[in-house]
Amino acid sequence: MFKVKVYVTLKESVLDPQGAAVKNSLHSMSYKDVTNVRIGKYLELTLDQNTADVEQTVKEMCDRLLANPVIEDYRYEIEEVVAQ
Amino acid sequence: MFKVKVYVTLKESVLDPQGAAVKNSLHSMSYKDVTNVRIGKYLELTLDQNTADVEQTVKEMCDRLLANPVIEDYRYEIEEVVAQ
Repeated sequence: MFKVKVYVTLKESVLDPQGAAVKNSLHSMSYKDVTNVRIGKYLELTLDQNTADVEQTVKEMCDRLLANPVIEDYRYEIEEVVAQ
Repeated sequence: MFKVKVYVTLKESVLDPQGAAVKNSLHSMSYKDVTNVRIGKYLELTLDQNTADVEQTVKEMCDRLLANPVIEDYRYEIEEVVAQ
């Protein structure tokens, strides 16, 4: 079994209105020290697979569904979980 | 300056319909090995602050705005960035 953590973030050059809204809210709650907020997605996938091409599969899934490669970057961590 | 990464995830006991939808989509794209998908948020905050209570501030921000403690868990990583 594999546990995969995928982090999807907007590219640096893409505006993040959601992040800007959170930043404004934090400022209005008097956390004035926050200078920037960027919001992305965090996905945890469980793969029931014992093949060697997990990385390739995850990459494909990210490119085809989980991230929009036009405006988003992604990175992932794959961890093998040994069943008890 | 501090870079803070916040990971907000739904608690294990809370249903994740968005994750279920993504799992179904992956299955229909023939990634049948995916047994579970959970979706959370990933936030990157920049704090322009040189005090010692960054951790306390981040914890407060999470509890008050960034996460909903009733249904969500969060964890964070704080990294100090030295200005060039």
